[in-house]
Amino acid sequence: MNAIKFKNNCLFYLDQTQLPSKEVWRQCKNLREGFTAIKQLRVRGAPLIGVFAAYCMAQALANFSHHKEQFLRQFKKGVRYLKQSRPTAVNLFWALDRLERVVFDNREKPLSEIKRMILREAVAIHKQDLELCRKMAEFGVKLVKKGDRILTHCNAGSLATGGDGTAVAVIYKAHKVYKDIKVYADETRPLLQGARLTAWELQKNKVPTTLICDSMAAYLMQKGNIDKIFVGADRIASNGDAANKIGTYNLAVIARYHKLPFYVVAPFSTFDLALESGEQIPIEERADNEVRTVLNKLVIAPQDISTANPAFDVTPNKLITAIVTDKGIIYPPFKKNIVKTIKS
Amino acid sequence: MNAIKFKNNCLFYLDQTQLPSKEVWRQCKNLREGFTAIKQLRVRGAPLIGVFAAYCMAQALANFSHHKEQFLRQFKKGVRYLKQSRPTAVNLFWALDRLERVVFDNREKPLSEIKRMILREAVAIHKQDLELCRKMAEFGVKLVKKGDRILTHCNAGSLATGGDGTAVAVIYKAHKVYKDIKVYADETRPLLQGARLTAWELQKNKVPTTLICDSMAAYLMQKGNIDKIFVGADRIASNGDAANKIGTYNLAVIARYHKLPFYVVAPFSTFDLALESGEQIPIEERADNEVRTVLNKLVIAPQDISTANPAFDVTPNKLITAIVTDKGIIYPPFKKNIVKTIKS
Repeated sequence: MNAIKFKNNCLFYLDQTQLPSKEVWRQCKNLREGFTAIKQLRVRGAPLIGVFAAYCMAQALANFSHHKEQFLRQFKKGVRYLKQSRPTAVNLFWALDRLERVVFDNREKPLSEIKRMILREAVAIHKQDLELCRKMAEFGVKLVKKGDRILTHCNAGSLATGGDGTAVAVIYKAHKVYKDIKVYADETRPLLQGARLTAWELQKNKVPTTLICDSMAAYLMQKGNIDKIFVGADRIASNGDAANKIGTYNLAVIARYHKLPFYVVAPFSTFDLALESGEQIPIEERADNEVRTVLNKLVIAPQDISTANPAFDVTPNKLITAIVTDKGIIYPPFKKNIVKTIKS
Repeated sequence: MNAIKFKNNCLFYLDQTQLPSKEVWRQCKNLREGFTAIKQLRVRGAPLIGVFAAYCMAQALANFSHHKEQFLRQFKKGVRYLKQSRPTAVNLFWALDRLERVVFDNREKPLSEIKRMILREAVAIHKQDLELCRKMAEFGVKLVKKGDRILTHCNAGSLATGGDGTAVAVIYKAHKVYKDIKVYADETRPLLQGARLTAWELQKNKVPTTLICDSMAAYLMQKGNIDKIFVGADRIASNGDAANKIGTYNLAVIARYHKLPFYVVAPFSTFDLALESGEQIPIEERADNEVRTVLNKLVIAPQDISTANPAFDVTPNKLITAIVTDKGIIYPPFKKNIVKTIKS
């Protein structure tokens, strides 16, 4: 299952705001449309945003100047512009920085060659993401046992990456190996990525899935119905503090109380080693209407009521049992082991 | 603000499933309509259900036989029938048992007098509930300080009782006394009583209120934005274990992690001293569609996805800081102090 397609320099994406009712594919024809697609969460999931942003730049090259100096300015401006679409997901910056480095390292070469190299780099970012998902699944499945009942939050699946996902890639792999895995998917208010996306893709792939409201997880843990938790991440600091969809920290706290393992799954590109701790990760505060309504389609509250709407929260490293990456499973002490593993 | 009215033997109720968009009043003309109103949550909140069920029986007397023997059979059957409308709320049983005792104790008297006594008892149950709310507020406000930021879950307000509420009555009182109280209201999926009812009534009463999704509470506690939690209860066992709306247990766990006081507010009629612990409280499992949709109006998940949908959870006594009742504040050890206070 893919959420984006890049063919003959044309970029298409599955509009995830329309799921699960409709599968609508849209074309992204310029940077503005790319910006909007990310901003409005039509394309979401930290790794997928990175791949998409890279293709978006590649696809925009045709509209850029034929004069190198002006091209370089336009390229730089485009990168800066796209980076503003979402402040938390580090993969966005990571992918765009990669393109920028290609441009910078080869700025003496002919413009036509620079453009070819950007295109090649975007494709490489996508291929790499696919491979990262495969490796995370391979490492992560070692943490799963026959018959496990796994809880996941938001969508860290094939709709969030260029491959099978992060946390959900582990679930797909475990389902393949053990056959009898059961999944609980948190619906993930306010934007319901769990109900709309994770439940949808797990069902399509025939993985037995039970949808729950976010506040039911503690009850199910108390009843002994959940064995472990796997979630993705949007940014991980060098000490292991992990930013992910709002509600993840809540899950980590209740998992600890019930003595359940809590695993974060993310590729090396999600790590931001420049950050000492999660306190430095900016948290995007989104519009009131996401909370006052359901998907802007159904009003559920008094129309002018105040809301809080942080899109992410930060789970401190001490609540994380292990972090599954494409380079292996990282256990505490995270501060030491992250640098060792990620820089290897 | 009242959610039911009883005038000239006619029973009216505010259909709470229509809030906050519409204020629709309906008449309840017989036991079947009363059963449906409770079952479909048009009338909800443990204390209010008790008052409503009592009025429902009183109002149905006119349809019962004029022959005492047959009347007694019909009355008993009616009580049994209404008790099946919701299995968790103990106030329903408590109120109906009170009416039954009146009938039993006076079965030698003329039928017309028995009917008058039932009516009088229903009114007494309502008046008592009003008074209980007033007393709970008076005791509970002692736990609140100037400037407190209070989190509440579901609706334990004037829409849930015959008076000002349980947990929310404390908030109203604190707002009156201190002026500067702030409230966070959990939206309370799946049926959104927090967003639709608590936010609505707090706003109507000009109490500064911020609506949040259920999974955001842990984030706000981590940021130091919440000082204490007040929730209601649907049934409390003799050891202090408290059943309340799903998500309450989740809140209690995260409150403990953040070292915040967690208060349960309930009148003596919510206590079920016959139960040794909360494990004996039956938990109502409700329909898939409450989770797959929002209020049966908006589909948010694949249509045949499995769900779990427990309507309540049980918070173990060890996570409860104190229980505010109409007879005073009960602190641990609960097992000893509950019997002492409630039976006094």
